[in-house]
Amino acid sequence: MKNTIGNCFTVTLFGESHGKAIGCVLDGVPSGIEVDEAFIAAQMEKRKGISSISTARREADEVKILSGVFENRTTGTPVCFMIENADTKSKDYSLTKDLARPGHADYTAEMRYGGFQDYRGGGHFSGRITAPLVAAGALAISMLKSKGIEIGTHISSMGEIKDRDFENYAEDIKALEGLSMPVLCEKARAEMLAYIESARAEGDSVGGTLATVVTGMPAGVGEPWFDSVEGMLSHGLFSIPGIKGVSFGRGFGLAAMKGSEANDEFRIKDGTVTAVTNNNGGINGGITNGMPLEFTLAVKPTPSIYKKQNTVNFKTMENADLEIKGRHDPAIIHRARVVADSVTALTLCDLLIMRFGTQFFGK
Amino acid sequence: MKNTIGNCFTVTLFGESHGKAIGCVLDGVPSGIEVDEAFIAAQMEKRKGISSISTARREADEVKILSGVFENRTTGTPVCFMIENADTKSKDYSLTKDLARPGHADYTAEMRYGGFQDYRGGGHFSGRITAPLVAAGALAISMLKSKGIEIGTHISSMGEIKDRDFENYAEDIKALEGLSMPVLCEKARAEMLAYIESARAEGDSVGGTLATVVTGMPAGVGEPWFDSVEGMLSHGLFSIPGIKGVSFGRGFGLAAMKGSEANDEFRIKDGTVTAVTNNNGGINGGITNGMPLEFTLAVKPTPSIYKKQNTVNFKTMENADLEIKGRHDPAIIHRARVVADSVTALTLCDLLIMRFGTQFFGK
Amino acid sequence: MKNTIGNCFTVTLFGESHGKAIGCVLDGVPSGIEVDEAFIAAQMEKRKGISSISTARREADEVKILSGVFENRTTGTPVCFMIENADTKSKDYSLTKDLARPGHADYTAEMRYGGFQDYRGGGHFSGRITAPLVAAGALAISMLKSKGIEIGTHISSMGEIKDRDFENYAEDIKALEGLSMPVLCEKARAEMLAYIESARAEGDSVGGTLATVVTGMPAGVGEPWFDSVEGMLSHGLFSIPGIKGVSFGRGFGLAAMKGSEANDEFRIKDGTVTAVTNNNGGINGGITNGMPLEFTLAVKPTPSIYKKQNTVNFKTMENADLEIKGRHDPAIIHRARVVADSVTALTLCDLLIMRFGTQFFGK
Amino acid sequence: MKNTIGNCFTVTLFGESHGKAIGCVLDGVPSGIEVDEAFIAAQMEKRKGISSISTARREADEVKILSGVFENRTTGTPVCFMIENADTKSKDYSLTKDLARPGHADYTAEMRYGGFQDYRGGGHFSGRITAPLVAAGALAISMLKSKGIEIGTHISSMGEIKDRDFENYAEDIKALEGLSMPVLCEKARAEMLAYIESARAEGDSVGGTLATVVTGMPAGVGEPWFDSVEGMLSHGLFSIPGIKGVSFGRGFGLAAMKGSEANDEFRIKDGTVTAVTNNNGGINGGITNGMPLEFTLAVKPTPSIYKKQNTVNFKTMENADLEIKGRHDPAIIHRARVVADSVTALTLCDLLIMRFGTQFFGK
Repeated sequence: MKNTIGNCFTVTLFGESHGKAIGCVLDGVPSGIEVDEAFIAAQMEKRKGISSISTARREADEVKILSGVFENRTTGTPVCFMIENADTKSKDYSLTKDLARPGHADYTAEMRYGGFQDYRGGGHFSGRITAPLVAAGALAISMLKSKGIEIGTHISSMGEIKDRDFENYAEDIKALEGLSMPVLCEKARAEMLAYIESARAEGDSVGGTLATVVTGMPAGVGEPWFDSVEGMLSHGLFSIPGIKGVSFGRGFGLAAMKGSEANDEFRIKDGTVTAVTNNNGGINGGITNGMPLEFTLAVKPTPSIYKKQNTVNFKTMENADLEIKGRHDPAIIHRARVVADSVTALTLCDLLIMRFGTQFFGK
Repeated sequence: MKNTIGNCFTVTLFGESHGKAIGCVLDGVPSGIEVDEAFIAAQMEKRKGISSISTARREADEVKILSGVFENRTTGTPVCFMIENADTKSKDYSLTKDLARPGHADYTAEMRYGGFQDYRGGGHFSGRITAPLVAAGALAISMLKSKGIEIGTHISSMGEIKDRDFENYAEDIKALEGLSMPVLCEKARAEMLAYIESARAEGDSVGGTLATVVTGMPAGVGEPWFDSVEGMLSHGLFSIPGIKGVSFGRGFGLAAMKGSEANDEFRIKDGTVTAVTNNNGGINGGITNGMPLEFTLAVKPTPSIYKKQNTVNFKTMENADLEIKGRHDPAIIHRARVVADSVTALTLCDLLIMRFGTQFFGK
Repeated sequence: MKNTIGNCFTVTLFGESHGKAIGCVLDGVPSGIEVDEAFIAAQMEKRKGISSISTARREADEVKILSGVFENRTTGTPVCFMIENADTKSKDYSLTKDLARPGHADYTAEMRYGGFQDYRGGGHFSGRITAPLVAAGALAISMLKSKGIEIGTHISSMGEIKDRDFENYAEDIKALEGLSMPVLCEKARAEMLAYIESARAEGDSVGGTLATVVTGMPAGVGEPWFDSVEGMLSHGLFSIPGIKGVSFGRGFGLAAMKGSEANDEFRIKDGTVTAVTNNNGGINGGITNGMPLEFTLAVKPTPSIYKKQNTVNFKTMENADLEIKGRHDPAIIHRARVVADSVTALTLCDLLIMRFGTQFFGK
Repeated sequence: MKNTIGNCFTVTLFGESHGKAIGCVLDGVPSGIEVDEAFIAAQMEKRKGISSISTARREADEVKILSGVFENRTTGTPVCFMIENADTKSKDYSLTKDLARPGHADYTAEMRYGGFQDYRGGGHFSGRITAPLVAAGALAISMLKSKGIEIGTHISSMGEIKDRDFENYAEDIKALEGLSMPVLCEKARAEMLAYIESARAEGDSVGGTLATVVTGMPAGVGEPWFDSVEGMLSHGLFSIPGIKGVSFGRGFGLAAMKGSEANDEFRIKDGTVTAVTNNNGGINGGITNGMPLEFTLAVKPTPSIYKKQNTVNFKTMENADLEIKGRHDPAIIHRARVVADSVTALTLCDLLIMRFGTQFFGK
């Protein structure tokens, strides 16, 4: 349903970049969940990115919880997270509002909304709208943690630079939590930062890949048709601005393998069924098999660049030149990481509640 | 909702490999759509694959339309497609039913359904359940064609073998329609067939990638958040057994590009807004921009192989050996192509109806 | 979603009166539920009504379960119930198909489907389409019974004739199960049968009210806003052909009461919270309070009568006379009772699964 | 889905009586709809009721539109309506919070949310939560008016006092718009006001019935199964606190009629198909027939009364006495009228968009 996602645990998103406020409503929340406002604030802060890269718009991003929480615990009724827009400079858009920024949604917004869209700062398409997803996601992350389910994401590649793979999940996840630039190998991290810096110097931008692992998911969650773990996660993850690919386990690498290589053999280990390899990313037939979930996201480079670009004026239907000014990040992948973890957590809570009811999380 | 997909044009799937019948219910169908039973039959035939590869189970797969069609046109009420299972050999499953076939859903089904699943031939997880999707998809493909929207998919890679890219969309799509082994380059096609044959000889199997193009989609279709074209398509496509990756436009290739390379510049061409490149696959901000939709799927190798594999008996919780016997295909990617086109068509019809109402297709 | 109802336990209905088959798909079913085919058959038989009244269309109404049941238990995957249409007399509809039968949906179907509807025997609007609801409902009734939840419905009034109220719920429910004419007071039952007979003699028809009680529902089921017990039940019940009113507890009677009379006071009884009266029908704030659910349905008289009626031809847009011929019941209220119980059971299973997960019913 | 209603045009509700704010998110809104903030404010004012009756809580109820509106028109993205709670007296609830007020949801909230509900002022169950529904409904009413669709509701009965029936729809609807006590007959209005006053004097409360008419609805809107006009409207209307009965056309009166009386004969009038009577309330087979929609609601008396009542303490599980203090209305039916019109408008917009797409309303 358009701006709502989820079956039993749903998020409804609202807001525009330069409107009064942005926010979301989380429904289907179990009652009695402790709300850790400090953790929400910490996630909001992490989403803002590294100040050396993201010199851009600085908002306080104070999350107000308007409903559904009483005496610091969820009541079981809808939780509305709201963030007021403060820094909405009354910039003059008259010269650029009809120019389609390449890689952006200006032209498609015009075609979808017939000229009535709020064009200021990308409006409803702005990356800023991910802020309430991060707020709601923080609650979902807490819910999962309380059941021993942990999520970790690193930048697995950027340009030609590769991060090392996960080695010890628990340690790596812990390390990533503390990093605003989530790269496991220190050397790769420094190289990526330099790569971003050089792109900025050229007025250009960079993308990359994000690799996520989720540990502690019980087996038997997900549905064989349509509401598979892959289908549900990808539906949410592709909403994140800039995500253009989602793959599970070895993903596109599986396409070049033989069945005898790709199949994950099973063995009994410590009394439980365990897959010896995890090429399928913890999912068979759309359902978790108890192994860590593993997936990878392709993040395209930020479309806002300072180089001159060819485009059109979609009102006059004439060719035009575009030179974007103002505040823009040469990289958003480290910020997209926080959003990806949030959407992952929200989706997994939904799948767990679909399978086990709200009781899974307590009351 | 579990076995239902779609917002306004929905498919509800049912059936098990060795049950009485499989089928699906298509709801939200505009009234007055002509039903081309010969085209449905042709798609069903194409889904069966190439006889030289797929020596496997041969079913007549006669599609019965139980409802929603009158005097050869849709009535606007739910269309139930049903296919009776005929060739359900009363094989003895007693030795293997508790062994988790690697890469299959036997173990996850046990964890999901608590031992009550129909284990015969993969039950509800069987690739056979895609047959009704192809029947419903054939109707959706006809609906799209009537509005000038065409879908073409080829096997873009298999092992180290690459097919050529699309050159002339209209001609290539037309060529692919006639091919049961959908490879554009004749040489690559022969190599892929030989590659499959050699895998078969070893008792092994192969995967590959599928590349799809959709021409004729109007601009302005899709939603910015959650029900983006990417989110909706991936949700459906990941349901297809064996699909482990979905990417749009240049997909994972975008991750290594700079913004200045990745952005698709716009120009006015023949009086319409046109993107000069199509790195974003015809989608900006989740909404179609009028360019061809382009996406790629990773298809893992068929998990059923004849080589001996390590596994477990999930009832006795002991390690076990497995040697699969019976009928299995060394490749299903050319068959998955038909399913992918069907799911694509069903999803695009849904998105078009969400945007323009059922009137888009006539009544 | 049009022909689907339910949130977590959903029914998707298909079929036309004179098509190949009618049926429904039940999804979200817990696995491991025993399927009592004899009970399903008994409910189907009860739905056919009393032969002395319903001399009409006689179908075998053999329910085929196409999927989702294995070794007599639900597998947890969608259950498709199908009933083939046998007695579809190739009657000539050419004279009447464009005449709007008063009280029927012929004209609205024309407006909704633009002339493509299957007009034979009422098509998708036929009361016959309730047969699959009764089949699915029988499974839901069994599920509820296994948890001590029982449903009983009687004809509380017809014309000026009133049945007595429920006295002993358990005994009355048991008595009603055995009755094809569900009237508690024997004298009222005889009077109602005579009243129906006299209407038939005049070529006319009768309606009435149905009063339902559900015992054993746990407290705490339902949602405050929108998915209240009243909202969910009424949504389903108004789908039953001929239902034009739904009220809970004292219903319209509450409108004339004072708050001091209408409020149900609470007392502790046998260690549990108990309402001293049940004017609110077991529901406060949309949520069950542990008292019996009580509601009443208004059933309009069967619109098919033999008297000559004024109408129009909606193709020629001219006034016309109509004399309906063929097989029609002077009363369907005793048959609607079976459908009402089925829809009630399906909805309550959905509400219970929303609240407690599928585990409420076992696995 | 719990706190969301609608298929294509959806409302998601949030908030508690004494929380920070209450509100709702309206999604699926066509773009380009003019927003009449004065009309929204007028509806909010009307919802507050007559000051002589409702001496109760007085809030400014200033509606803030946080998103989805730009330059006074809808953008096509979600519209969030928010109302801050100002007058949330820090009353001491410690003595009464575990006492189940008869007719209220205190006990069912405890059973549903396990003790974590916000009990202050009824929390999420408070009638106050209807305020955002009225705000969103005002937009829906404007949308309908722009297409010539008008809604009028009067108090058709209270105690033994009856209002006259609708006579001239257009005039009566117009008259009702101007009335805070919506009774057509002046004498009946005065009697009802006196009746309320006498109930107040006794510390008691009154209910009544509301009768609604909707003119201008096109024929062919609604679905035969499940999403019938009756099913959709009743689902929403039963969410309104105090509504315990919904009936269409002659409603429960139909139960005592013969088919020959109940059937609405058709005639051609001014070139269109017209029903001579409107016993079916403008709906046949769940679909509008072009006649005015007519339905009636049973509103129970306000459960908050000042008389001493028997109840229980659901924490100590002991019997208790209750004497409610504080601010309460002896009648809310005239306020419920505004909510009923709002829910009706929201539901009809959904049904119209389901049938004709968002284009029905312009863009």
